[in-house]
Amino acid sequence: MGLVVQKYGGSSVADAEGIKRVARRIVDAKKAGHEVVVVVSAMGDTTDELIELAEQVSPLPAGREFDMLLTAGERISMALLAMAIKSLGHEAQSFTGSQAGVITDSVHNKARIIDVTPGRIRTALDEGNIAIVAGFQGVSQSSKDITTLGRGGSDTTAVALAAALKAEVCEIYTDVDGVFTADPRVVKKARKIDWIAYEDMLELASSGSKVLLDRCVEYARRYNIPIHVRSSFSGLPGTIVSNDNPNKPEGGEMEQAIISGVAHDTSEAKVTVVGVPDKPGEAARIFRAIADAEVNIDMVVQNVSAASTGLTDISFTLPKTEGQKAIDALGRVKEGIGYESLRYDDAIGKISLVGAGMRSNPGVTATFFEALSAAGVNIELISTSEIRISVVTRADDVPEAVRAVHSAFGLDSESDEAVVYGGTGR
Amino acid sequence: MGLVVQKYGGSSVADAEGIKRVARRIVDAKKAGHEVVVVVSAMGDTTDELIELAEQVSPLPAGREFDMLLTAGERISMALLAMAIKSLGHEAQSFTGSQAGVITDSVHNKARIIDVTPGRIRTALDEGNIAIVAGFQGVSQSSKDITTLGRGGSDTTAVALAAALKAEVCEIYTDVDGVFTADPRVVKKARKIDWIAYEDMLELASSGSKVLLDRCVEYARRYNIPIHVRSSFSGLPGTIVSNDNPNKPEGGEMEQAIISGVAHDTSEAKVTVVGVPDKPGEAARIFRAIADAEVNIDMVVQNVSAASTGLTDISFTLPKTEGQKAIDALGRVKEGIGYESLRYDDAIGKISLVGAGMRSNPGVTATFFEALSAAGVNIELISTSEIRISVVTRADDVPEAVRAVHSAFGLDSESDEAVVYGGTGR
Repeated sequence: MGLVVQKYGGSSVADAEGIKRVARRIVDAKKAGHEVVVVVSAMGDTTDELIELAEQVSPLPAGREFDMLLTAGERISMALLAMAIKSLGHEAQSFTGSQAGVITDSVHNKARIIDVTPGRIRTALDEGNIAIVAGFQGVSQSSKDITTLGRGGSDTTAVALAAALKAEVCEIYTDVDGVFTADPRVVKKARKIDWIAYEDMLELASSGSKVLLDRCVEYARRYNIPIHVRSSFSGLPGTIVSNDNPNKPEGGEMEQAIISGVAHDTSEAKVTVVGVPDKPGEAARIFRAIADAEVNIDMVVQNVSAASTGLTDISFTLPKTEGQKAIDALGRVKEGIGYESLRYDDAIGKISLVGAGMRSNPGVTATFFEALSAAGVNIELISTSEIRISVVTRADDVPEAVRAVHSAFGLDSESDEAVVYGGTGR
Repeated sequence: MGLVVQKYGGSSVADAEGIKRVARRIVDAKKAGHEVVVVVSAMGDTTDELIELAEQVSPLPAGREFDMLLTAGERISMALLAMAIKSLGHEAQSFTGSQAGVITDSVHNKARIIDVTPGRIRTALDEGNIAIVAGFQGVSQSSKDITTLGRGGSDTTAVALAAALKAEVCEIYTDVDGVFTADPRVVKKARKIDWIAYEDMLELASSGSKVLLDRCVEYARRYNIPIHVRSSFSGLPGTIVSNDNPNKPEGGEMEQAIISGVAHDTSEAKVTVVGVPDKPGEAARIFRAIADAEVNIDMVVQNVSAASTGLTDISFTLPKTEGQKAIDALGRVKEGIGYESLRYDDAIGKISLVGAGMRSNPGVTATFFEALSAAGVNIELISTSEIRISVVTRADDVPEAVRAVHSAFGLDSESDEAVVYGGTGR
């Protein structure tokens, strides 16, 4: 039996009862013979409450102090969890990100891990303890200040510790049963995926699936750490994310397209730069302006230019929250670039089909568009990768479009309704 | 203008408004040209709420984890306070006890400071920052684990930092105007004391005055750090605790008794060991048994033995919360010592008169007992020191006894009512 890293999200430790339930699960893993390292998030709404307090005392809280504040949340949950485990008769010690050796850069509020030196964790395990580690936090290498890792930070802490400690698996406990072929709130017949490759999970994550964030999957892929996404409420096996399907059937299948699932995202907006002179360097100037404003963009589409005018349109999508910044940045370079106008549209949605072998199976693309057409969904933008097709539609069309595609690819489950515990977000 | 350490208690930073009010006061000190180090407690009832959570998950929370949990409280208040200061346009950085160099022993929940190495605080000050430090916490020298300092810990943090940084004064901000000649809730005519010597303050603190704890005063005396106890709600000067009265009148007074105040305490119980053989070593065996049970005792009184029996009674007082432990410990050694019986009484109160020059002024003792007698208060135990007389009475008699003594020593103020802001406890 090897070392297991388990991560529990805020909804799993929302109150004293939740903490005790999680403690029993951890002790079960220890009794089964594993060395156990647990990464825990702040309880329930603690982080939101701390953010609200910060807004009450300061309109623009300073990054260093904001991180100091937020890390109080995990400190509370990890200490309580260690106490609960000890009251079950097992030894446990809690560690802050800094004590656990999570070394980051100095970018407050969204620091990136640059090293993990888990000497104290290793010692605690060697002495027979269960080690409880605060998720979402670290300490900056240069200034020794406390940092937080930003969205999905606790999952990343778990995977990073699993890599540094050479764990056999990183279990991410959440309030759903695993990764589904589509959002069960939208597609009643969505099925739980038993296994998915890192690459497919990455595409699902970046296409709107919220169960795992791409950052954590990317880290796991780099260090080849299997992730097991599962429910902390049920005892069922969840979804394994790894390189190789442990239950791969003998032979066959290798050249077939394996559809993993359908993701959707209605958090983005679309910007179209209309009437851009179709000559080298124009796109570069547009996206340099966007990059200088520190706006992250997603899809980028340029149509062929109309021969009569020599002008083209460039569209891209980005988080709605970044829309204003992008419009302002492009407005400042209008004269330099010489485009005609900007169009901003935040009533859009994105539907993505993800699966291996898609490009070499032309039937996949055809089936995808046929399904959308039959559902009466109009397509505004198209973008593809090796293992993904994404389209942008009206936001209102998204639920119907997702159900149509899910059904067309035979992903619907036999049963009428997906078995999901609790909510589906985190 | 030198360096000032300011300490704010939980009632001063109970909510966002309180934090902003405290921030303005800190900035005022900075604007006046001081280097400012601030020690802050957890907001309002945070610590009690965390203790309640701990009790929900574990009947006997482990010390190490309990400390990890409780220190989240100051982390929240210090980060918010730093943010609030920064939003007023001044630079501030917050530091945990560990970051501030508060080094302690390893006794969780009531660690003692063994060293202070405030290198990061000194650097922050040199760079023009206001330094905000979490009170009540440190890091153990041997295990590098987070510790808490127990009752009055934040005051002790403030004085210890003041000593290490060679501050000119340590200001303890609280919700009363300073140290009073008696508890203003009991004595309406109690007066605020402008100056009091360390020794007198120590006696008042150990006799039931709750404004400062003896531990913090002891530390200040050892390093000769003046303490200024004052209200964070009013702008008034409070009480200076130091070696020398800065406003001492020329000549005179030196041989007169200077009465500082009247303290009372109803948190103690009295244990009487009845019928102890009056021979060497018996008292030692009694108090060794008490010490082995880790019970702290206060007054100890032994009467002369009755010649006819050769037996004596030994009485002592101790916190009510320790009563059961003491009774159990004495029960276990009954046969060895051979006493007759134990009497336990928790309906007692203690009244103490504190002041310099008391012993060499016999009139003080006489006036004290006359005042109690005139008020019809019966005395059960008497104990004296160089600068204090304490008596134990029925708990019900305490308010009347305190008023009688206060009045007899001319401590009553001219005005009808003491000016006190907020409550009087902490």
